[in-house]
Amino acid sequence: MHTKSLQESYSLVKYPLAGHGKRNVEVLKKAFEQISGSIESEMYGKGKVIEDFQDKMANLLGKEAAVFFPSGTMAQQIALRIWCDEKGVAKVAYHPLSHLEIHEEDGLKELHHIETVLLADQTRVIELDDVTGMEEDVACLLLELPQREIGGQLPDYGTLEKISAYCREKGIKLQLDGARLLEVLPYYKKTAAEVCALFDSVYVSLYKGIGGIAGAVLAGSKEFTEKSKVWKRRHGGDLISLYPYILSADYYYDQRSGKMDAYYEEAKELAQLYNSCEGVYTLPTIPVSNMFHVHFEHPKGETEPILIQIQEETGIGFTGNLREKDSHSSYYEVSIGDLYEGVPKDLLNQSFQLLNEKMAKAFE
Amino acid sequence: MHTKSLQESYSLVKYPLAGHGKRNVEVLKKAFEQISGSIESEMYGKGKVIEDFQDKMANLLGKEAAVFFPSGTMAQQIALRIWCDEKGVAKVAYHPLSHLEIHEEDGLKELHHIETVLLADQTRVIELDDVTGMEEDVACLLLELPQREIGGQLPDYGTLEKISAYCREKGIKLQLDGARLLEVLPYYKKTAAEVCALFDSVYVSLYKGIGGIAGAVLAGSKEFTEKSKVWKRRHGGDLISLYPYILSADYYYDQRSGKMDAYYEEAKELAQLYNSCEGVYTLPTIPVSNMFHVHFEHPKGETEPILIQIQEETGIGFTGNLREKDSHSSYYEVSIGDLYEGVPKDLLNQSFQLLNEKMAKAFE
Repeated sequence: MHTKSLQESYSLVKYPLAGHGKRNVEVLKKAFEQISGSIESEMYGKGKVIEDFQDKMANLLGKEAAVFFPSGTMAQQIALRIWCDEKGVAKVAYHPLSHLEIHEEDGLKELHHIETVLLADQTRVIELDDVTGMEEDVACLLLELPQREIGGQLPDYGTLEKISAYCREKGIKLQLDGARLLEVLPYYKKTAAEVCALFDSVYVSLYKGIGGIAGAVLAGSKEFTEKSKVWKRRHGGDLISLYPYILSADYYYDQRSGKMDAYYEEAKELAQLYNSCEGVYTLPTIPVSNMFHVHFEHPKGETEPILIQIQEETGIGFTGNLREKDSHSSYYEVSIGDLYEGVPKDLLNQSFQLLNEKMAKAFE
Repeated sequence: MHTKSLQESYSLVKYPLAGHGKRNVEVLKKAFEQISGSIESEMYGKGKVIEDFQDKMANLLGKEAAVFFPSGTMAQQIALRIWCDEKGVAKVAYHPLSHLEIHEEDGLKELHHIETVLLADQTRVIELDDVTGMEEDVACLLLELPQREIGGQLPDYGTLEKISAYCREKGIKLQLDGARLLEVLPYYKKTAAEVCALFDSVYVSLYKGIGGIAGAVLAGSKEFTEKSKVWKRRHGGDLISLYPYILSADYYYDQRSGKMDAYYEEAKELAQLYNSCEGVYTLPTIPVSNMFHVHFEHPKGETEPILIQIQEETGIGFTGNLREKDSHSSYYEVSIGDLYEGVPKDLLNQSFQLLNEKMAKAFE
């Protein structure tokens, strides 16, 4: 008998707890259903389709201008390069688990020859002391809100304000890695523009909470964004047509930007359910966005069969991707999206009862 | 009374002579009409959608492997970087009107710090003597087939073979800028794989003759393409989902790859019509692909009103974009696509009769 993998088991559940649904071609087809075929493609960054959306994003983020990029990887390297060139200092600071440090094959170093200073450590966010205690001169500090790789943690808003004031005083530019910016606004109780006002430049992803197909926006002063367009071309990101991403991002932005409060509340509810199970805890304990990490005080090899069994029994989907933390513990990431609200509560509670029972038994 | 610009006038004609039709959202919608919504997105370069297409392209090009890129700009910089790193020589050679030299904001130099040696001049393609006469040691020679900016000219096939043999002997890698590779196969009477066998690495565009939305393919040995994937991530081109481009490229490839012969024959027919007009000639005189340039021995300011008048009178579209060559001459580019075959012959002949008459009159 073939035993299902966690991934297979998850792909078959009726009620995944996380996300907006499958990343399939339907995401594109649905977005374009109502869009007229006669709308003309933008051409190499010029034209109504891209300019309208950029204006909309600039307005949302309270910045003078915004530029659509195929990826955040490209947008952020370019932002840091611009600030380094401006200051004549090829050095920036960010968190050791920044996307740039661990997921981009060192593009920042290999393509832009920018050195990095790592602030804070792998368990916590960057605090004011980390910034004021920096001995090296950097052109830019990049802050990721929320800090994804540690469960989506956030600094206090007061800390952000102080870091911002300090950096301005010291001539250090502040770049916001706001891949999940909209997702943290309910916790901060701020508008996107209010948060972005603390930063010189801002990147926002269009396929995380918003759930578009791909793409990102980089915003800042007109002078900054104009420079970013030149670098976008150099990177090979100035495609003749980006409209498949732009128009779908716009569609899903309109659908979901108003739901971030609900996702946040649901994340807190779901985290509580996890935290009620023996040997299971979430990071943060109380989420500060739509995301958190679920940790098991039990190795991957022993936790997986339990998750698979409950997923098959209840049709509730916890995850398809359990990661080994170390030899005796494991974890996965949860980001709440459209699906959670459709999960029947009785089934939800039943699945967590089972999880608690099975985890308790595993600890006997 | 408002006088229409050439661009406006062209956008209103019933029968444009060049291209596949408007670059609008319909291009996307049409491609996805028959594609099932349940097809899963690839994820960061992995998955059936991207792998199947890459295999198909590798097979077409006769290379071990192929990688889908969002743009040719990205693909070619990366190809050259790989060859430079391998040889430990940060220098490449190409034509002075190469896309890399004039359309990429010096990405190759700014991002990769690669120096360039310019071969041949702005009137002709690179010949064997240019290559054997090179004094500097380069890691790679890039050849563009056809050389777009000079009307889409081509070297003899024998010259290509000799250049290829020479480069292999001298340890110089040969990169094919095959943005329009499929379009030159009817002239060379070769398969794509036969041409590509002369090169170490190959780039092909998916939105020129094929008429996709955007995207490119880079092909070569498995070792080469695996390295290119690392650089693709560094450039910010390893998007979570490239399927909007991949699936549409695949759709239009299947529609149009068999039509390159027809486009080539039609280009020759159309060029002959232009060459029958006084003060008008094409470059090349007899096209060697689906493209050529139309030159007017008359300044832009005086040629434009003539083109506008004929476009309005006949509904035949010559161009929307006449470029100034110098103070007394002008030109534009023509690439034959799906539209040409639908143009009524009588109207076509009438429009060229008018063009001849009006140009002759302008010369009186």
